[in-house]
Amino acid sequence: MRYDTVTFLSDYGLVDEFVGVVHSVIRSLAPEVAVIDLTHQIAPFDVRGGGLALARAAQYLCPGVVLAVVDPGVGGERRAVAVEVGGGMSVLVGPDNGLLALAVALCGGADRAVELTADEYHLPAPGPTFAGRDVFAPAAAHLCRGVPLDELGTPIDPAGLLPGVLPVTHTDDGELVAEVLWVDHYGNAQLNVDPAEVDDLGPALRLRFAGRTRTARRVASYAELGPGEVGLVVDSYGLLSIATDRGSAATELGLGPATGVHLAPADDEPAAREAVTTAVSLSVRRPEPTEEGR
Amino acid sequence: MRYDTVTFLSDYGLVDEFVGVVHSVIRSLAPEVAVIDLTHQIAPFDVRGGGLALARAAQYLCPGVVLAVVDPGVGGERRAVAVEVGGGMSVLVGPDNGLLALAVALCGGADRAVELTADEYHLPAPGPTFAGRDVFAPAAAHLCRGVPLDELGTPIDPAGLLPGVLPVTHTDDGELVAEVLWVDHYGNAQLNVDPAEVDDLGPALRLRFAGRTRTARRVASYAELGPGEVGLVVDSYGLLSIATDRGSAATELGLGPATGVHLAPADDEPAAREAVTTAVSLSVRRPEPTEEGR
Amino acid sequence: MRYDTVTFLSDYGLVDEFVGVVHSVIRSLAPEVAVIDLTHQIAPFDVRGGGLALARAAQYLCPGVVLAVVDPGVGGERRAVAVEVGGGMSVLVGPDNGLLALAVALCGGADRAVELTADEYHLPAPGPTFAGRDVFAPAAAHLCRGVPLDELGTPIDPAGLLPGVLPVTHTDDGELVAEVLWVDHYGNAQLNVDPAEVDDLGPALRLRFAGRTRTARRVASYAELGPGEVGLVVDSYGLLSIATDRGSAATELGLGPATGVHLAPADDEPAAREAVTTAVSLSVRRPEPTEEGR
Repeated sequence: MRYDTVTFLSDYGLVDEFVGVVHSVIRSLAPEVAVIDLTHQIAPFDVRGGGLALARAAQYLCPGVVLAVVDPGVGGERRAVAVEVGGGMSVLVGPDNGLLALAVALCGGADRAVELTADEYHLPAPGPTFAGRDVFAPAAAHLCRGVPLDELGTPIDPAGLLPGVLPVTHTDDGELVAEVLWVDHYGNAQLNVDPAEVDDLGPALRLRFAGRTRTARRVASYAELGPGEVGLVVDSYGLLSIATDRGSAATELGLGPATGVHLAPADDEPAAREAVTTAVSLSVRRPEPTEEGR
Repeated sequence: MRYDTVTFLSDYGLVDEFVGVVHSVIRSLAPEVAVIDLTHQIAPFDVRGGGLALARAAQYLCPGVVLAVVDPGVGGERRAVAVEVGGGMSVLVGPDNGLLALAVALCGGADRAVELTADEYHLPAPGPTFAGRDVFAPAAAHLCRGVPLDELGTPIDPAGLLPGVLPVTHTDDGELVAEVLWVDHYGNAQLNVDPAEVDDLGPALRLRFAGRTRTARRVASYAELGPGEVGLVVDSYGLLSIATDRGSAATELGLGPATGVHLAPADDEPAAREAVTTAVSLSVRRPEPTEEGR
Repeated sequence: MRYDTVTFLSDYGLVDEFVGVVHSVIRSLAPEVAVIDLTHQIAPFDVRGGGLALARAAQYLCPGVVLAVVDPGVGGERRAVAVEVGGGMSVLVGPDNGLLALAVALCGGADRAVELTADEYHLPAPGPTFAGRDVFAPAAAHLCRGVPLDELGTPIDPAGLLPGVLPVTHTDDGELVAEVLWVDHYGNAQLNVDPAEVDDLGPALRLRFAGRTRTARRVASYAELGPGEVGLVVDSYGLLSIATDRGSAATELGLGPATGVHLAPADDEPAAREAVTTAVSLSVRRPEPTEEGR
């Protein structure tokens, strides 16, 4: 056996029997292989979301085969591919639609790749709509069993694989213009921001997004935040994340994947200054009651 | 060991610890066995839905034990059974309420069956409501360990097992009267229609359902469909399926399990003809403006 | 290898890749270990719910390591711990926030415990927010590989572990005052009531909760209940549970975790008597219209 682990990600959901059937196909062909389910609840057809999840997991995955299926173009023109990385340490199997690209890049780039055209390694199927079962899972299992990559199909130029897109930050009018990459199960909103990018902006930042402005304090853990307070945490992937304590920052602030967020030092914040001014002027305008006034 | 794989389907959901406890019971009794989760999100008590999911998966399952629990009558009069198929290749374990029937039939019918009455093979339990944990999982594990089927209980006549119900199509007034079997995660609506049944009806069909009429084009893959277009695809199980590209046909059209759908050639469609007639008459009625009319 | 099974419970949900990454970390460190997912859909931050799920499962779990992560205080002051029980039969790994306490007690109490301070057994991480991946999963895997408990950190006094809270019943004005512990996937509402506590109250009980009153009949299985009837079943954990047949008692009656429920014999029901009285007096007060009154 060449590989003993298949790590499996898809947008199949967990209601239908799709995931279980793929497990069964792999076990039928390669009984000794362990299949680890990374997640199957990527939103239907969300290639970006699937690619980011794979990228977040990449450095923690066991060597072996990665089977990734978010495949809106199934049965159409998109290619089914297998991409070898890390000098053969792993092979990523899936559609050539950008899904695999960020993970491939994080593993040091593709060594070589094939299009999965050798249909003697596919399951016969009445229709082309379940490539996970009929094309990708058998390819993953055969790779585990030691079938060489280039027997699974036609070699292709790795440079021709569809790239993934990772938005980068830029600076505009003194603000760092960023974007929400991912909202997790707890409502933390991960930004495409390396903490070093904001180290000069001080301990509190002004966030502008979707027409709103909020001040966020940089903290090391969620528990440092008070009720209602918004924080910026270095998350478990080393990126800056907008968070609240025991609540969903995303729900509270209206953040979702791809929401644009502008960051600047909080002490340079017009909205905050106005708020302070208003408070002061209110207290000035509220006179002490006098005998006369009664 | 007689069998090394248990394939497990239920309506237990994934929120409670039910599925994990069943895994743990099986591993405690038969540590070397792999358990494949087919799905546990069959709708609560939906014996029909569970039976169809088992049937769709049947031909892809590893030989071994199939453990299926959708069991609204648990603790009542329904029998707990184990049914051997394929000359001993597999044994299906579950309630005798029709859940297993389609899969048994697809595997060539039952060779023999027992009612699981031998309570020395059950777990002691304070109540009868979790037969998956206390009766079915232990039976599955003991079968894997090599306990003979007929030690698990009283032999029963397989002909007396409750049958499953698979709706069949019929023709009525020139239309093929069909039914939605299943709506999948992506919103594709699988019909109980073999593609050969509609091969004579041409490349586009008229669908009538729930008081609505839509034209659907036969295509090989979802990606052939334009935005808003409804298609008929031969799905991965070889049945005709109503689909759209990157959208939910079921949501858009209001289709669900058991919705009746009437199919006929699109060029024979009264609704379409009327639409054409109306359009023509409208253009006839719309006179060219004349000098006089101004 | 010391242990060959890790049983894993969390509030990670199944949408993100968290659960899969933890599996992958364990497999990377201890490839031969099986990981059983108990559930990952404990409500976010619901330490009580997670602790009760662990307690319900405890007696059915394989010997080995139990990895439990519901951890709102992650990265803060709460301790990360490993607790040995059953003379070394199992070790529970998780945060010291009460989550493990009921299961530890059901396993006979803690033999010894350590705080997981030995960071050579942790994964390096850019932030402290994913202790499941970086602290707890590695500890579980190393324990399986035979690393002694006391190498993982500083010994602590098991008596100082945060206790779990299990509400107990009491009697008030002739009623048994109980509480809903758990609402399961089917809508059955488990009470903190041993059936022996209500054996003297007769075959039908009056339930008072949230301003409502219902009569419930004691039955052995759901199927004994008629449509619309409310029953009290001894559930699969030996506790009294409020149920209906093929429907959600919790939804129908408005019950949720921690809802208070008062139980008394049904034939002694003041509310029912009042209802009757009221109905009679209303009909008495409603005079027949007379000629005069018009």
